[in-house]
Amino acid sequence: MIETPPLVDQHCHGVLRTELGLATFEARLTGAAGPPAAGTTFFDTQAGFAVRRWCPPLLGLEPHCAPARYLARRRELGPAETGRLLLRGSGVGAYLVDTGAPGDLTGAKELARAGEAQAFEVVRLESLAERAADGSGTVAAFLAGLGGAVHHAAASAVAFGCGAGTGYARALADDPSPPGPGEVRGAAGRWLAGRAGGGPVRDPVLLRHLLWSAVSSGLPVQLHTGAREPGELTGFVRATEGLGTQLVLLGGYPHHRHAAGLAAAYPHVHADLGPALAATGARAAAVLAELLELAPFGKLLFSSGGRQLPELHAVGALVFREALGRVLGGWVADGAWSWRDADRVAAMVAAGNARRVYRLDERG
Amino acid sequence: MIETPPLVDQHCHGVLRTELGLATFEARLTGAAGPPAAGTTFFDTQAGFAVRRWCPPLLGLEPHCAPARYLARRRELGPAETGRLLLRGSGVGAYLVDTGAPGDLTGAKELARAGEAQAFEVVRLESLAERAADGSGTVAAFLAGLGGAVHHAAASAVAFGCGAGTGYARALADDPSPPGPGEVRGAAGRWLAGRAGGGPVRDPVLLRHLLWSAVSSGLPVQLHTGAREPGELTGFVRATEGLGTQLVLLGGYPHHRHAAGLAAAYPHVHADLGPALAATGARAAAVLAELLELAPFGKLLFSSGGRQLPELHAVGALVFREALGRVLGGWVADGAWSWRDADRVAAMVAAGNARRVYRLDERG
Amino acid sequence: MIETPPLVDQHCHGVLRTELGLATFEARLTGAAGPPAAGTTFFDTQAGFAVRRWCPPLLGLEPHCAPARYLARRRELGPAETGRLLLRGSGVGAYLVDTGAPGDLTGAKELARAGEAQAFEVVRLESLAERAADGSGTVAAFLAGLGGAVHHAAASAVAFGCGAGTGYARALADDPSPPGPGEVRGAAGRWLAGRAGGGPVRDPVLLRHLLWSAVSSGLPVQLHTGAREPGELTGFVRATEGLGTQLVLLGGYPHHRHAAGLAAAYPHVHADLGPALAATGARAAAVLAELLELAPFGKLLFSSGGRQLPELHAVGALVFREALGRVLGGWVADGAWSWRDADRVAAMVAAGNARRVYRLDERG
Repeated sequence: MIETPPLVDQHCHGVLRTELGLATFEARLTGAAGPPAAGTTFFDTQAGFAVRRWCPPLLGLEPHCAPARYLARRRELGPAETGRLLLRGSGVGAYLVDTGAPGDLTGAKELARAGEAQAFEVVRLESLAERAADGSGTVAAFLAGLGGAVHHAAASAVAFGCGAGTGYARALADDPSPPGPGEVRGAAGRWLAGRAGGGPVRDPVLLRHLLWSAVSSGLPVQLHTGAREPGELTGFVRATEGLGTQLVLLGGYPHHRHAAGLAAAYPHVHADLGPALAATGARAAAVLAELLELAPFGKLLFSSGGRQLPELHAVGALVFREALGRVLGGWVADGAWSWRDADRVAAMVAAGNARRVYRLDERG
Repeated sequence: MIETPPLVDQHCHGVLRTELGLATFEARLTGAAGPPAAGTTFFDTQAGFAVRRWCPPLLGLEPHCAPARYLARRRELGPAETGRLLLRGSGVGAYLVDTGAPGDLTGAKELARAGEAQAFEVVRLESLAERAADGSGTVAAFLAGLGGAVHHAAASAVAFGCGAGTGYARALADDPSPPGPGEVRGAAGRWLAGRAGGGPVRDPVLLRHLLWSAVSSGLPVQLHTGAREPGELTGFVRATEGLGTQLVLLGGYPHHRHAAGLAAAYPHVHADLGPALAATGARAAAVLAELLELAPFGKLLFSSGGRQLPELHAVGALVFREALGRVLGGWVADGAWSWRDADRVAAMVAAGNARRVYRLDERG
Repeated sequence: MIETPPLVDQHCHGVLRTELGLATFEARLTGAAGPPAAGTTFFDTQAGFAVRRWCPPLLGLEPHCAPARYLARRRELGPAETGRLLLRGSGVGAYLVDTGAPGDLTGAKELARAGEAQAFEVVRLESLAERAADGSGTVAAFLAGLGGAVHHAAASAVAFGCGAGTGYARALADDPSPPGPGEVRGAAGRWLAGRAGGGPVRDPVLLRHLLWSAVSSGLPVQLHTGAREPGELTGFVRATEGLGTQLVLLGGYPHHRHAAGLAAAYPHVHADLGPALAATGARAAAVLAELLELAPFGKLLFSSGGRQLPELHAVGALVFREALGRVLGGWVADGAWSWRDADRVAAMVAAGNARRVYRLDERG
């Protein structure tokens, strides 16, 4: 058996504080925007089956029990106790909590208490911009407020993040360089003028400005790649090489081999095991093995991508631990790897790489 | 052992009625347009090996016998008896027959009789257009004839289809919306004027018109993706969401994970297990497992893609059944899935999903 | 056990003649341009683990010994004896040596002597052009010199090659056809005029001219695909079909399934097992199995891509042989393939296909 230390979950969100019915629980199981197709259910997915495998035993039920039975037990315990049991059963020692997701979710400290773990904050750049815009009347005030917010966040958070939905990757593919001050002022003016009622940042110049502000702060930057080919990021990766800022590519399935290739080619690029593990369930070991083809073992980080449901945090961690043990253990059994190396790599991917990249031990 | 009901082969063509020599048989084994390279044979492919594994026993020979021996046995039995033995040995209960392929092939009814199975028709949109053009002197007559043909087909067929070779995917990537009546008339006029001697539909406006006519009919639409990234279809997928028409993506290897991702993200999109199974033979279980990562289990449909050679129908079905049993059985053995769920999912993918999507039970 | 004959390594470079320290050895283990990230080492990669698994036993050490111990043993033996032990232990019978890589590397004859094997030369087109430019004062002299060099190389080498870094793939995607004489003269004039101090060929017109010159020679052409989608080459593949020249796609991971698809679709296209095997180490069998999905078994060729370190030549060969045995042996155990077929395919991929494509037996 491969031994892994308590995991560092390098990217997750908070969990919901409210009770959930069968349909509201089901709707949060996968990333789909709408309801399931007529005649189907989101429980009939690898994510659904993985939740039914791993979570019922943590709540005192048989694995693979029916969804209705699981939800009944969940209601019996209440959302707080359910969260505590799931998070504490997952073997995670530290969470990096992305506080940019909408909804009434627990923050970093509350997640830490529930999971008896450390928690650190990851600040979303687009949230900083939107909050700065909400509080500013002029372009100059907005840009000054944004600069202050980035500076302030750099002191308290362990990383910045930028979401795939903003379109930043396309913006960087078109021009990976930092925009000049005049360009930024112009873009900010246009965005603020057109922004009635709190619209999100989608302006390519502002997104580039945000990312380069983050790069200047020296904090690692988490780049969500969604399902896009990470090749779009190559220009930005080249432009930021040697500046001392670490980039962490989040997600990437089914392009995870490309993400691993970027991590192999550039010293400041890291790849994420990510939510593809919980989403692919019984196939997690196969997907993880593909990532482990090209990614240097010191450049790969675990995350659950868990959001809203503590089930997703727990399943991400449990699926990962089992998949890692199976993959590395198989290589040891074949004679391809030594036990000693396998244990060492497991510790790196599970926790050590994240502790080094985010300097967690300096944060306490 | 995972139990599967008689399969629904949701996409195949008819079989040849004529006898075949070694070279003419070989030429139909794979999708290659030309002859094999000097010094090589199409029998030395996964498809060739899969035929030699699965078909000889159905004709009373040893598996893996030499191609010449197999062809001799085939001639001994004659094409009709060969077809009956192969089709009846494949465990297929219903065929959806795409009648748009050229050549002297059996139609749906004849395939049904040979295979002792149900058969339903899938109508190719490009064939409807070409037939309407053959019988019309004017643009108005062509468009009226085409409208009538779509309407008529919607009453008798179970689905429409559109071939990858038409270039419809590129047309939809450029503009996914339905063209206006004036645009359609202009495009029809240009196509008819330039069409000496029965040329195929390649006009992007006419292809969009055909697809939107099919969408309006309410019948499911089978979209052949060939080896192209299905991302080109995203605009059309978005434009047709919520209209009540089901889209089924056919093929997609080596982009099958993307196709599965579209099926996960949009309620009206389905993915196909397809001809990649027979084409990859000994690797079919591995390819199937990749599709089963992200595709909701209620959105995945079996097909053989069989065409011309009944061997391809039979191998598609037999390879699929073995691969499904191996993949799901492995997950049960690992404790990742329950037996009960595995049997249920096998029945869905093998037949139930197709019966629901194409409303086969209403057609009888 | 699957039997394989002595391998033909259809693409490698020479090895360094100088002694290496730990850091200089490490820097050559992977394709990364710069140093490893702080806190990481290139030994912690599949390539590093594969070297530590396969090479120490060839030098009399335990597998998986520490890098420092391995390097100490290497220094003890000296670079020449190390090279001899590694190359002779790898089971390679013939090398095709690409002489276009920079650095003080052994040539074909020296590699042959060290490895007790045959060796043949592969000439890089860009090197021919750069050498012709170095020795010419005028456009006319350059083009005449280049024509003569191609003609001369065709008589002594077994293939031409073109490197991914030249950008030839993009040039062919934009226009796959041979440029006219006037175009070539113009491009040559511009390149020579701007070429102070021996710059490399990056001009799209000259690259197309080089490739079409190679095609005219009738010798096989090795096209390095790097990590690019080989779809860019489709136009050139179509334009060269039926001309009698064989194309061999080198590399291609993670797009190897696409490369296999091109080899399946076009009679003159071949795919390479390539350096992805040594680079993915414990995963080599999985990657090889993916290539064996669509590639006709007569169109797949082994290579190590070894360069500078004889470890890479040896690991490529040893990893390949083990992976091939495991993949084909597994299919035989499953009943999917017969032993006889598996042995036959192993011999083709290991050596027979390369001997046929490069006509090695006519070269002696």
